[in-house]
Amino acid sequence: MRVYDLIWKKREGKELTKAEIDFLIAGYAKGEIPDYQMSAWCMAVYFKGMSFEEATALTLAMVNSGRQVDLSRINGTKVDKHSTGGVGDKTSLVLLPAVAAAGIPVAKMSGRGLGHTGGTLDKLESIPGFKTAIDPEQFFRQVEQIGMVLAGQTADLVPADKKLYALRDLTATVESIPLIASSIVSKKLASGADAVVLDVKYGDGAFMNQYQAALELAQTMVEIGNRSGRRFKAVLSSMEQPLGMAIGNSLEVAEAITTLKGNGPADLTELCTVLGGVMLWLAGKADTIDAGSEIISEIIYSGKGLQKFQEFVQAQGGNSLVVDEPDLLPRAKVIKKVIADQEGWVERISCRELGLISMRLGSGRTKLEDVIYPEVGIVINKKVGDYIKAGEVIAEIHALTETAADLATTEIRDCYLLTQQPVAKPELIKAII
Amino acid sequence: MRVYDLIWKKREGKELTKAEIDFLIAGYAKGEIPDYQMSAWCMAVYFKGMSFEEATALTLAMVNSGRQVDLSRINGTKVDKHSTGGVGDKTSLVLLPAVAAAGIPVAKMSGRGLGHTGGTLDKLESIPGFKTAIDPEQFFRQVEQIGMVLAGQTADLVPADKKLYALRDLTATVESIPLIASSIVSKKLASGADAVVLDVKYGDGAFMNQYQAALELAQTMVEIGNRSGRRFKAVLSSMEQPLGMAIGNSLEVAEAITTLKGNGPADLTELCTVLGGVMLWLAGKADTIDAGSEIISEIIYSGKGLQKFQEFVQAQGGNSLVVDEPDLLPRAKVIKKVIADQEGWVERISCRELGLISMRLGSGRTKLEDVIYPEVGIVINKKVGDYIKAGEVIAEIHALTETAADLATTEIRDCYLLTQQPVAKPELIKAII
Repeated sequence: MRVYDLIWKKREGKELTKAEIDFLIAGYAKGEIPDYQMSAWCMAVYFKGMSFEEATALTLAMVNSGRQVDLSRINGTKVDKHSTGGVGDKTSLVLLPAVAAAGIPVAKMSGRGLGHTGGTLDKLESIPGFKTAIDPEQFFRQVEQIGMVLAGQTADLVPADKKLYALRDLTATVESIPLIASSIVSKKLASGADAVVLDVKYGDGAFMNQYQAALELAQTMVEIGNRSGRRFKAVLSSMEQPLGMAIGNSLEVAEAITTLKGNGPADLTELCTVLGGVMLWLAGKADTIDAGSEIISEIIYSGKGLQKFQEFVQAQGGNSLVVDEPDLLPRAKVIKKVIADQEGWVERISCRELGLISMRLGSGRTKLEDVIYPEVGIVINKKVGDYIKAGEVIAEIHALTETAADLATTEIRDCYLLTQQPVAKPELIKAII
Repeated sequence: MRVYDLIWKKREGKELTKAEIDFLIAGYAKGEIPDYQMSAWCMAVYFKGMSFEEATALTLAMVNSGRQVDLSRINGTKVDKHSTGGVGDKTSLVLLPAVAAAGIPVAKMSGRGLGHTGGTLDKLESIPGFKTAIDPEQFFRQVEQIGMVLAGQTADLVPADKKLYALRDLTATVESIPLIASSIVSKKLASGADAVVLDVKYGDGAFMNQYQAALELAQTMVEIGNRSGRRFKAVLSSMEQPLGMAIGNSLEVAEAITTLKGNGPADLTELCTVLGGVMLWLAGKADTIDAGSEIISEIIYSGKGLQKFQEFVQAQGGNSLVVDEPDLLPRAKVIKKVIADQEGWVERISCRELGLISMRLGSGRTKLEDVIYPEVGIVINKKVGDYIKAGEVIAEIHALTETAADLATTEIRDCYLLTQQPVAKPELIKAII
């Protein structure tokens, strides 16, 4: 087998066999196939795509390049959750305790945030004392004891994906649906769950701006997952505006806690309920997704989810008093209100831009080595369909300095597009596939 | 400027500026831009193409990566000739002496053959004593004295093209018209000619099988050449069957000599006459191409071309007696006739396959380090439109061994497709652009 022929074959739009893809990925992971051939192949994939068979073979070849987590020690169906990332996406902080409270073992590994979207680990680490470096023994013991653990991703999972992603990132070949899908699914498969719910976001603040592209990504991931012998389900949710109101690590933790108390924003609560419903259904704890959602709803409104969150924070070394005293979370020195200078209905919010403003305030990274300031961020007061009166508070800025807050004030105002006609509240969840 | 952005831009089908292309090629030539980014960029070019502006910028950037030959010491318009390569293409051996005899200085660098097509240097080196390693002083002195010199390409011309071509060859990105065009034209520009005629071949035995692709390549090269301030013209000629009758180095030299005596095959004579007409017209030695062709025709039939060829061979150390005594050329030990076992008109000849059979007999290389046997090859007796009677000689094989000749016999027979209806003689030259 010659790498040249495999590049040529893909360039011509032909389908590679499983043996050919195994050869390519194993050879690349071992350093036997050079970057320059791999990047040309990735660009050919960008233009010519991959069949579900090819994408599945690619995913499994990447999984086989490293260690796989064995969760068999944990009883019951292990259901994982993945979000393609969005602005204000603190779903996991609400959803996972709720699901754990419903009796589904949550044994999850999570990642860091980069760019305009935040990572679950970063958010949790804004809780004083919270640890995400968990050794395997604690990982399993914690699941056995409280039914929930959340750890940082270990470096030895899917090394081929790490290497390939780094190459794609330098060669403008990230934006290929089968390559994105196989990258995500390979990590989910290697993490050992039996079933996975994918929260695939679309819109301005999402990785995929267009619904059609997000749908295609979701379909590809579900296909790969199912063809790999696991059960996958995807929810397509809008990221045309931030999820909930809070953007920034400790602000999002506070909002998650409010939501677990039953007082959270409607969209966040809805998304958690639907995703939780899917997870319960996948785990066989509910006959339908709707029935599962009802259980999650009951768990949230009864406070059982909050209690599980508290146990979880405590188990991982965090100060669980934050649940009752949000002031124990890091709080910014400078807090500034953004006052509306115009009136009208909110027609559109530049969601991605809000994420970037929060990142520049210090809540996120542009490079992996950047330092995160957990206390900074934005809390918006107005969402699409709301009416804004002149002089009203649109948002609150949590900043490190007055200068940064002043800069963000104008920027946030510019994110709001107003109109003089009433605007309908947009739907959050467009499809479950 | 970031390489990533330039890959992305091309991937999106956008046009790169001259400054961006300069940055890319200069950086690549210097080793500052890694192969893996360059190969991804080449694959994006494969899919998205390049405008004439971009292809010209690429060509000039490559020319600027190395030394350029300065031919200003030679008086008059220097006209170069390039063929995209074909089977039995000994055109330069006839054309260049004829053009030199017409008073156009021929100061040419030529390349080696690879694969199923041969190189002019290899052909000339089958003349006993002939040298192609010419130092600069001899190069110029020979042009001044006899008006013609032909040297091997020096290594320091267009290093960026050498590096890029090697990369493309490993990453399935050779077959891109703007990349092929800029590679060819960059070498022509660096070789210092004022004007260039391109013999762009199409058909089974050519690099470009389809006429449309060859036409596009020709148009791109002419555009690049003209935009670079030189005068370029292209002739599109058929390679659906070998040019002339002889394939193989010394056999082709013998056929070139016959042609310079006015007794050559009609197609080879026609091509030399037309290409020569274009060269005379480009050099301002004829008002029209047709008038130029008439001069070349007269030079060939008067023997002036042959005389120039003889001077040229002698000047480069070769035994010029070969002109009168072809037996002085290397001659194969085994010569075997291929006898027809069927009757009919020749409908089609597998031209590329004939080139490959000759290569396997020893006349060509699969790798640059392969040894060439100048004496081997094939002389065909029948071309498209000819009638073959059973028992007639189709071709003559010149081989190193009986075994090789026997193998080639069947293979050559298989190259001929016969039909029971008369077949028209195909046209050789389809367009001059």
